[in-house]
Amino acid sequence: MPVTNGKVLFNSVPEGYPEPGKTTVYDDSEQIDLESVPIPDGGFLVKTLYLSVDPYMRGRMREPTKKSYSPPFTLGEPLTGHGVGVVLKSKSSEFKEGAHVYGFFRHQNYIVYPNRAGLIVLDNKQKLPWSYYVGAAGMPGKTAYMAWKEYSSSKKGETVFVSGGAGAVGSFVIQLAKIDGCKVIASAGSDEKVEFMKSIGADVTFNYKTSNTLDVLNEHGPIDIYWDNVGGPTLEAALEAANTNARFIECGMISGYNTGGAPIKNIIHVVSKSISMFGFIVSRLEHKYDEQFYKEVPELIAAGKLKVLEDVFEGLASVGDAILAVQKGTNKGKAVVRVADQ
Amino acid sequence: MPVTNGKVLFNSVPEGYPEPGKTTVYDDSEQIDLESVPIPDGGFLVKTLYLSVDPYMRGRMREPTKKSYSPPFTLGEPLTGHGVGVVLKSKSSEFKEGAHVYGFFRHQNYIVYPNRAGLIVLDNKQKLPWSYYVGAAGMPGKTAYMAWKEYSSSKKGETVFVSGGAGAVGSFVIQLAKIDGCKVIASAGSDEKVEFMKSIGADVTFNYKTSNTLDVLNEHGPIDIYWDNVGGPTLEAALEAANTNARFIECGMISGYNTGGAPIKNIIHVVSKSISMFGFIVSRLEHKYDEQFYKEVPELIAAGKLKVLEDVFEGLASVGDAILAVQKGTNKGKAVVRVADQ
Repeated sequence: MPVTNGKVLFNSVPEGYPEPGKTTVYDDSEQIDLESVPIPDGGFLVKTLYLSVDPYMRGRMREPTKKSYSPPFTLGEPLTGHGVGVVLKSKSSEFKEGAHVYGFFRHQNYIVYPNRAGLIVLDNKQKLPWSYYVGAAGMPGKTAYMAWKEYSSSKKGETVFVSGGAGAVGSFVIQLAKIDGCKVIASAGSDEKVEFMKSIGADVTFNYKTSNTLDVLNEHGPIDIYWDNVGGPTLEAALEAANTNARFIECGMISGYNTGGAPIKNIIHVVSKSISMFGFIVSRLEHKYDEQFYKEVPELIAAGKLKVLEDVFEGLASVGDAILAVQKGTNKGKAVVRVADQ
Repeated sequence: MPVTNGKVLFNSVPEGYPEPGKTTVYDDSEQIDLESVPIPDGGFLVKTLYLSVDPYMRGRMREPTKKSYSPPFTLGEPLTGHGVGVVLKSKSSEFKEGAHVYGFFRHQNYIVYPNRAGLIVLDNKQKLPWSYYVGAAGMPGKTAYMAWKEYSSSKKGETVFVSGGAGAVGSFVIQLAKIDGCKVIASAGSDEKVEFMKSIGADVTFNYKTSNTLDVLNEHGPIDIYWDNVGGPTLEAALEAANTNARFIECGMISGYNTGGAPIKNIIHVVSKSISMFGFIVSRLEHKYDEQFYKEVPELIAAGKLKVLEDVFEGLASVGDAILAVQKGTNKGKAVVRVADQ
């Protein structure tokens, strides 16, 4: 008996903030018969459980002529992103029926994978909620964990500044920096987020909408490591308050994603203060750190040593709202879309 | 019999370009008696032969409250910079009479060093002109050689863009990149400089005042390595034309030194193209590369494998003119001041 196989389509390139229903459209016109859907040899049928909604997705909502490390979404086609699902039927020896899998998903209820397609099977010995595997134990967690290990060169007693410190990546970075014995200054855009950053151990926290970033950094800096999630005026302040030989980990610049860019006036400090600045693609670090990551991080979460906050959006049709919330920063914790429970 | 011990004083902090006679002043009021001048045990008397004038010196002409890796010049005191001199009298077992020394010099005819003060003795087996030891075989050469080795991760066939390619550092970088089998695009601000860059092996050369930098880079890029001497709009163009995983070696940003800074609009590409950007201080790389540098570079020059172009300014009183020429880019080759021949 066919069931609805809903999907979220990329419908138009946004100029400013993405608009649910215009930039992306939920489409329930497709049907699928789970009993009779053809599965090729080596392939398998997956039911989507959780989808990740992340800041970088804004960059994929572009004209295909613009170059970037992440491919643009295709107009009229479903969005894609990190997800967790369960295998319903399989002709693969590796991806067995009932297995939970993590990797790149179309934003759709049911997907037939013709081959492994980069997916991995999650064993989840710690019985974490499956959604965590698109959060702290998924791509955002890898982003924080791997780039921190690769680029921070952190030393005990150094001062770290994390912008976007209440987000999925930022909140993980705060906790990594504290584990390494650093002093952590962290900023976010609401008092509620500031409270959360305090609760996970940040030493100095502030709401950038009501405090002057440079004043705070001048008082509590200079900064040895800056984890940048926002760019723009916050990056300028970090450059002003940077110590000699500072490392800037350029994870994102969300302040410019919906406004045509985030110019900075004082890039000269890269020269005058001998700063290293690292843009990066987490997928290129995975071969080096993936084993270590899956060994350590789920354990840390299970033991309560790594605190996680989620903001769950209900149903595939809420993807557009989740995307907008993440771009506006109104989400409270890692934004995930619950497509199905099991 | 006392002789004049001329010196060049830092006289006022410039707002725009430094002005000879105002920013810096030649002062001949001091006398020295070379026979009777007291020399402490372990010390020695040096006669200055050549002084280096380099772009970074503009950054030292600042209010002392502004932080940077290089200390500010002190108002009313002589400038300091790299120099070569000869030991006239010595109470040091290491720095003997007649030895040629390299290191940090006051801009003055005669200097009594109370101790080694970071100087080294040059053996100059290759009998190079002494001035080369403040150029390709001195700090600018070290800047090019050491940062290229440390940060470029060059691979054969990659495309390198060098701005300020006719200068002391840029011309060395072009030749290093060619030795490594890279394709080199190089820019400078006059047709004469463009000819020089061609003569040392750059594959694509252009005058940025008469060609559009981005057009050239789009035609001959994308860029895997950018050696930045100028910053500003040239850095913006390099970011636009950068390849994924590009390395940007941020040696200088002279376009902003005399104009209050060089803002850039598209720093986002550091994130979207996974770019690493390295500011650096050559003095921090010396412990790692100094031995290799002095072993290889004078030989390369002597063998004609590394071509050198000098612009010699005559006499200590010409320091101010040399500084202005370097900031305006009107010098033709490495700017050195000949204080004395021997």
